[in-house]
Amino acid sequence: MNYIIGLDVGTTATKGTVYDINGKKKAELKKGYPLIQLKEDQAEEDPRLIFAAVQTIIFKLSKMVKGKVIAISWSSQMHSLIGLDKNGELLTNSITWADNRAKDIVLRDKESGLALKIYQQTGMPVHPMAPVYKLAWLKENKPELFTQVDKWVDIKTYLLYRLTGEFKEDITMAAGTGLFSLKKLAWDQIILNQLGLKDRNFPQLVQPTAVIGKMKDEYVHKLDLPADVKVIAGASDGYLSTVGVGAVDKNEFALNIGTSGAVRMFSKKVLLDKKARFFCYPSSKNNYLLGGPVNNGGIIFEWAKKMLLGPQATAKNFLDLAQTAPAGSDGLLFHPYLGGERAPIWDSNARGSFVGLTRKHTKAYMARSVLEGIIFNLRAAAHLLTASAGKPKELRITGGFVRSNFVRQMIANIFAIPVVTMKNDQSGTLAAMLLARQELGFTENREKIKNLIKEDKTYFPDQEEAELYQNLFPLYCEIGQDLEKSYAKIAAFQKRQK
Amino acid sequence: MNYIIGLDVGTTATKGTVYDINGKKKAELKKGYPLIQLKEDQAEEDPRLIFAAVQTIIFKLSKMVKGKVIAISWSSQMHSLIGLDKNGELLTNSITWADNRAKDIVLRDKESGLALKIYQQTGMPVHPMAPVYKLAWLKENKPELFTQVDKWVDIKTYLLYRLTGEFKEDITMAAGTGLFSLKKLAWDQIILNQLGLKDRNFPQLVQPTAVIGKMKDEYVHKLDLPADVKVIAGASDGYLSTVGVGAVDKNEFALNIGTSGAVRMFSKKVLLDKKARFFCYPSSKNNYLLGGPVNNGGIIFEWAKKMLLGPQATAKNFLDLAQTAPAGSDGLLFHPYLGGERAPIWDSNARGSFVGLTRKHTKAYMARSVLEGIIFNLRAAAHLLTASAGKPKELRITGGFVRSNFVRQMIANIFAIPVVTMKNDQSGTLAAMLLARQELGFTENREKIKNLIKEDKTYFPDQEEAELYQNLFPLYCEIGQDLEKSYAKIAAFQKRQK
Ligand SMILES: Nc1ncnc2c1ncn2[C@@H]1O[C@H](COP(=O)(O)OP(=O)(O)OP(=O)(O)O)[C@@H](O)[C@H]1O
Ligand SMILES: Nc1ncnc2c1ncn2[C@@H]1O[C@H](COP(=O)(O)OP(=O)(O)O)[C@@H](O)[C@H]1O
Repeated sequence: MNYIIGLDVGTTATKGTVYDINGKKKAELKKGYPLIQLKEDQAEEDPRLIFAAVQTIIFKLSKMVKGKVIAISWSSQMHSLIGLDKNGELLTNSITWADNRAKDIVLRDKESGLALKIYQQTGMPVHPMAPVYKLAWLKENKPELFTQVDKWVDIKTYLLYRLTGEFKEDITMAAGTGLFSLKKLAWDQIILNQLGLKDRNFPQLVQPTAVIGKMKDEYVHKLDLPADVKVIAGASDGYLSTVGVGAVDKNEFALNIGTSGAVRMFSKKVLLDKKARFFCYPSSKNNYLLGGPVNNGGIIFEWAKKMLLGPQATAKNFLDLAQTAPAGSDGLLFHPYLGGERAPIWDSNARGSFVGLTRKHTKAYMARSVLEGIIFNLRAAAHLLTASAGKPKELRITGGFVRSNFVRQMIANIFAIPVVTMKNDQSGTLAAMLLARQELGFTENREKIKNLIKEDKTYFPDQEEAELYQNLFPLYCEIGQDLEKSYAKIAAFQKRQK
Repeated sequence: MNYIIGLDVGTTATKGTVYDINGKKKAELKKGYPLIQLKEDQAEEDPRLIFAAVQTIIFKLSKMVKGKVIAISWSSQMHSLIGLDKNGELLTNSITWADNRAKDIVLRDKESGLALKIYQQTGMPVHPMAPVYKLAWLKENKPELFTQVDKWVDIKTYLLYRLTGEFKEDITMAAGTGLFSLKKLAWDQIILNQLGLKDRNFPQLVQPTAVIGKMKDEYVHKLDLPADVKVIAGASDGYLSTVGVGAVDKNEFALNIGTSGAVRMFSKKVLLDKKARFFCYPSSKNNYLLGGPVNNGGIIFEWAKKMLLGPQATAKNFLDLAQTAPAGSDGLLFHPYLGGERAPIWDSNARGSFVGLTRKHTKAYMARSVLEGIIFNLRAAAHLLTASAGKPKELRITGGFVRSNFVRQMIANIFAIPVVTMKNDQSGTLAAMLLARQELGFTENREKIKNLIKEDKTYFPDQEEAELYQNLFPLYCEIGQDLEKSYAKIAAFQKRQK
């Protein structure tokens, strides 16, 4: 039997899954690496450690199946930036999406209107996570380094380069740089010009299904793989996790709530927001991934659990307690913005709040309002999309936060559409494997994909609760607007306290 | 030895203290009675039960000392309203300050501008607790009853009437009706006219030190008192508790935080707020009690203790936890308006909130922010006064909420002035006794009063923390304004849920 390895290069760890050629999962592995945060707002990773983790996973997975690994494909974290010199040696760490050092650049470009132009050209929201702002920051703050760099790549390109010696980037990853023209599906010459950079400073653009090149002998031996193993380009985790849950149609929404969260959907045409509040990442001339990345998902669940119930409490304790309070928490509204927020409000100074307390409110109400607040926020992010793209007919949900029936039903009620859960939660590696199968000649139609994906249960909204949430949702949004300026002042106070 | 009994007729109970003629406390007693809340917004009491409690206390206290009780004096809850027929028989219960049924009348009179006029004429804030609005409500909603009533009195006048057969009210109590002219120190003829009422429908006005009349034989026998026992008019609890802590000078502020709270000070002249946010109750031609009554004191402490630590937790548990968080709770601000608020915002739709949460915030920070929020709110109430009357040089504090050194120091820091605590916390009955002593011919100068009152400790503000709170206080106020409209919408939602 022949096998395909799918790798999902995340921020805290890489997960790998080995599939047989028919798409059946055989084994999976995970290996972590540390985030480097020596200075304020810094969030880097050592690309060599990630490459080491990837090698270990490939080697071990290949030993867990009897037969030939004929392809390796990739799902990757977006927005990372790495500088390499003329010899392909590292000049920087991988500066991850979580790195915030370009925030003042963003502020300045926002004021000058440049940031909105970049959004309109590239579909990349106005945020320091975008390589376009990181490059501007490096150019101003580390000018020497900046001029020494010959190639600017992301983490996936770096890994592919190490394995094959080729500098190639797939367009779903390029789409997350703020340097990639939405209309031309090429590096944006105007933006490159402004940075004093040229096409040759960036990888060559390819399709996600492309074969990158021949694997270097060194790694063929070291990893004990067949010499003709295909190294597939792969794609971004955002793109693949959406495909991987079968949300391939504009009528379907993908909602992932892990530590952070995101809502995503595909559109046949470019759709942009007037205020740049959702991304529009091309994957081909007639396919665009729209969506909102949200900071505050399970990380808030985790915080609230500890805060209300103590360090020993389990997720079940928290959910059991929350279930004793009524839908809507009797008007108690929670803002989950404990560390600022990306979509839908794009405000790093936003803060968390409980608003609307009466003497009736107990811990149970607070617990429930935390869950509702996390979901309201994602609904607000989704709302921006649906306002432009139309309301979808269902929501496909994944992530650690949606493990309980209680939360799943709550999502159906708050979004007021049916919610579908997945049997396979490794949607990233699964879809990466699908890319490889495509390259190997399998025709992957909608039906086949849906077969591999395996839906689990569907949760239909409860009419009465949906209506109640419909009434509360505008209030949730309004309070955010009410507090915007005060949140900024509190954030400033908190910075002074440090 | 001769003795004086001081009675404090509260909302939940009457407390009585017997003092010897030199002002030394000999014994005290307390007897409770229920609040009647059969309909929404109703809060009544049965005057007969209160009268029974008063008789029991007088009788028992007089048996606890050897000698003659020569005078009985009173401190009383304000704003109660009782209707009596031509024979002095009850036609209503005592409608207490907590009764909210006149709220729509208040809304209407606010819009028409009438309410502000009433404030300017009488110093009574715009609130359904005021008898002037209760009378308008009764006239519209119970017209038959309204015409049957011959005398409108408050609870103290009722008790004095039962004991002596006389209808007399002291002016500090009349000041809390919204019917008493600030300038003329008499029933306001224009307001009475508007209600279709005359002077003869109200008690005769007297000084707090006045002797009401001879005690009826019936009660002289029943209570086993000397026939010539002096029944003194007494005064309002607000007036007496301020005198009773020695805040008799415009440089001194009295702050009481029990279940609810209040800030009060005396002024030599009439002072009014443009927006009617503090009261101005005359006690004589050159003495006016200014202040703000605040709903949310210890009642919020009690709620937060249960909510955060469970029903078994003690006040000490809560305070110990709060002390582990830094001053300012790292920018976490708490609004204590769980059941709306009187001063300083006069908004029954206001609600509670925690605003400014980050992942750093734990239960300890929430606990501390609750204490700070309760005190910020009282500072805001005080701020209205000091803006008109000037900043006092010290704050004299009483009530269950200020039992700990931690809270006392926090009050000093948030108010940024020295805080003085009292050894005797029965300031109401003490000052009532002083009225009786005055009538008995003792001259009570400032020094003598201060001797009887007995200060305990003084807490001086910590420079650094005071500065920090100085920075946070405007934010606390601003957030209240931010949320005003949303609070009203949440309150409306909560009403619909009932
Ligand atoms: N150690 C403490 N620290 C803070 N608050 C406390 C403490 N102990 C009791 N309290 C609070 O004090 C309040 C009771 O105070 P107090 O006995 O002065 O009130 P009260 O006379 O009922 O109130 P009011 O004066 O408003 O009529 C309760 O709400 C209680 O939660
Ligand atoms: N039963 C549960 N209900 C809600 N949230 C949960 C539950 N179990 C775990 N979580 C949250 O899910 C998050 C992890 O989800 P996962 O999808 O594994 O995250 P990641 O984004 O790190 O891959 C954590 O923040 C955790 O608090």
